[in-house]
Amino acid sequence: MQTELSKKLGIEHPVFGFTPFPAVAAAISRAGGFGVLGAVRYTAPDELKRDLDWLDAHVGDHPYGLDVVMPAKKVDGVTEADVEAMIPQEHRRFVQETLAEHGVPELDDGEASGWRITGWMEQVARGQLDVALDYPIKLLANALGSPPADVVARAHDHDVLVAALAGSARHARKHADAGIDIVVAQGYEAGGHTGEIASMVLTPEVVDAVDPLPVLAAGGIGSGRQVAAALALGAQGVWLGSVWLTTTEADLHSPALTRKLLAAGSGDTVRSRALTGKPARQLRTRWTDAWDDPAGPGTLPMPLQGLLVAEAVSRIQKHEVEPLLGTPVGQIVGRMNAERSVQEVFDELTRGFEQAIDRINRIAGR
Amino acid sequence: MQTELSKKLGIEHPVFGFTPFPAVAAAISRAGGFGVLGAVRYTAPDELKRDLDWLDAHVGDHPYGLDVVMPAKKVDGVTEADVEAMIPQEHRRFVQETLAEHGVPELDDGEASGWRITGWMEQVARGQLDVALDYPIKLLANALGSPPADVVARAHDHDVLVAALAGSARHARKHADAGIDIVVAQGYEAGGHTGEIASMVLTPEVVDAVDPLPVLAAGGIGSGRQVAAALALGAQGVWLGSVWLTTTEADLHSPALTRKLLAAGSGDTVRSRALTGKPARQLRTRWTDAWDDPAGPGTLPMPLQGLLVAEAVSRIQKHEVEPLLGTPVGQIVGRMNAERSVQEVFDELTRGFEQAIDRINRIAGR
Repeated sequence: MQTELSKKLGIEHPVFGFTPFPAVAAAISRAGGFGVLGAVRYTAPDELKRDLDWLDAHVGDHPYGLDVVMPAKKVDGVTEADVEAMIPQEHRRFVQETLAEHGVPELDDGEASGWRITGWMEQVARGQLDVALDYPIKLLANALGSPPADVVARAHDHDVLVAALAGSARHARKHADAGIDIVVAQGYEAGGHTGEIASMVLTPEVVDAVDPLPVLAAGGIGSGRQVAAALALGAQGVWLGSVWLTTTEADLHSPALTRKLLAAGSGDTVRSRALTGKPARQLRTRWTDAWDDPAGPGTLPMPLQGLLVAEAVSRIQKHEVEPLLGTPVGQIVGRMNAERSVQEVFDELTRGFEQAIDRINRIAGR
Repeated sequence: MQTELSKKLGIEHPVFGFTPFPAVAAAISRAGGFGVLGAVRYTAPDELKRDLDWLDAHVGDHPYGLDVVMPAKKVDGVTEADVEAMIPQEHRRFVQETLAEHGVPELDDGEASGWRITGWMEQVARGQLDVALDYPIKLLANALGSPPADVVARAHDHDVLVAALAGSARHARKHADAGIDIVVAQGYEAGGHTGEIASMVLTPEVVDAVDPLPVLAAGGIGSGRQVAAALALGAQGVWLGSVWLTTTEADLHSPALTRKLLAAGSGDTVRSRALTGKPARQLRTRWTDAWDDPAGPGTLPMPLQGLLVAEAVSRIQKHEVEPLLGTPVGQIVGRMNAERSVQEVFDELTRGFEQAIDRINRIAGR
């Protein structure tokens, strides 16, 4: 399958794979797709450099990209300590009570929590970009709003295409006005931050709103039939995130979480503010239930919620406390029922795509 | 476009149109689709008979069907008065206060409220079926659960296919076990009662769950591209409801409501219990906001909520009190921006379908 965008990028399939794991990103690009490494967890430039070195060495001649989280609104001079100070005691107590209720052990001394708010701050994202532009990345994606104008210009100076996620046509038009090159239309069914509009409606709406800019459909896609559907809706490619979580190349550091993902049905996710303060689809757990319970204190706005729960989430993950153990994932989790290699996922995507085209041509009498 | 199901029913396009308006149902079937008349508003058998007479006289030789609302759980001997008695005074007061706040006038003396709970009761639905089986209907659809076994058997004795709506694969398998012939997979983005799973994920899941039973995709579909996407996902046809509301043949009895529908964006609907007590997608209004407000008394379970608000909804509709005026409708409302005839809708559906097939064949290199 070839679209204008896949030809431009020189890839075999217009399948973009977002992943926090360098091994998965490399495998996606080697399989003929386009691997995009999520940078949010790299708060230290050296760690990002180390993983980009590895990715660059293992991706062969295939292109790859980087996904950063650069908030649209810049907050100058605000430190993590300033944000910490804004968190009410009631919410801190609620975290401790919920962890205690489920007997979640502490982290070891000096063990850092894995997920830090700082990865969401513009200065950190700019540091990631400084590192990444030393590598031959071909795409820079931003998961929160349009990147600042100087970042778009800098990417373009390096011949790097800029993509941004949008949950509505209005949002997509703002990206287009900001000079970005590709819009990722992120439907309600997607994992992570999502809006209310489902892919069936959102994809064509965004395609028409930003025409002639290319649109990638995201949300609910994990099989070849769904790739065919997304392309029929007018997308120039698909953006998949969830489906890689249960590939053999992924390293969740938690057999219990992998088991939960493999067992979950499409109805076992929830769009909750529990993780970041903004609605993000994730596995529904006792943890999300506690935050979404009207009897509790409720969640705090971004970025307070993320900072509030960072250590708790690390404790839950490290100790694999099953009832609380979750991860951002989309409704496609219902079809992630066996561990497969990235290549096996691609084999199904392309075979299923061809079968869907055969079927729809029979229906169309062609 | 032809699928096994459209061939079996002898229709030109596998496009099923649900509508409360006989003129729309007739136009859908005449345009080569399959018109399905919603029966829920017919509490008097004579009124249904009158409208089926009209439909039968205006549909030509084309097939058509009936949609009833038959709850899965039978409640013997319960009258409307019994249900009335279960409604708390607090909720009745809230209705009156909300109406008063917006200056909603009373109905005239003797003027009945249009939407009655009784249309949702099994004895009423059975009465509708008694009437309908005197007509050459080819399809009986049930919007709430599987129809009772004797109803399925009776329909089959009359060579009437039975369809049922499902919001999950589990729900769909129950329908298959109950002996129904067609499953309508109703995605999150659909108008009226919906579940949480969006069409991109739900359609293939239901297709696989009930194979080889035919599945119609419902939710978010109103253009030819979306028909192509739904068929690529494995559906044997599509089930459209919202898109007919702004056709010239529809008779909403409210220019203000038509204006609101034409102006609404895809983000202007909400999945709320305000109308029936079960989550149903509808235009978001001050009325739904009031019921969904945590500071209010909240909604009552089905069937209490429907009975509680029936007269209020009639008053709002009759007097076209714009801030409160709504209707069940799906996210596709964002693309319903001009009044069109049913034939014009079909012209776009078929033309857009062919264009989507052309496009996807180019992408597939065929």
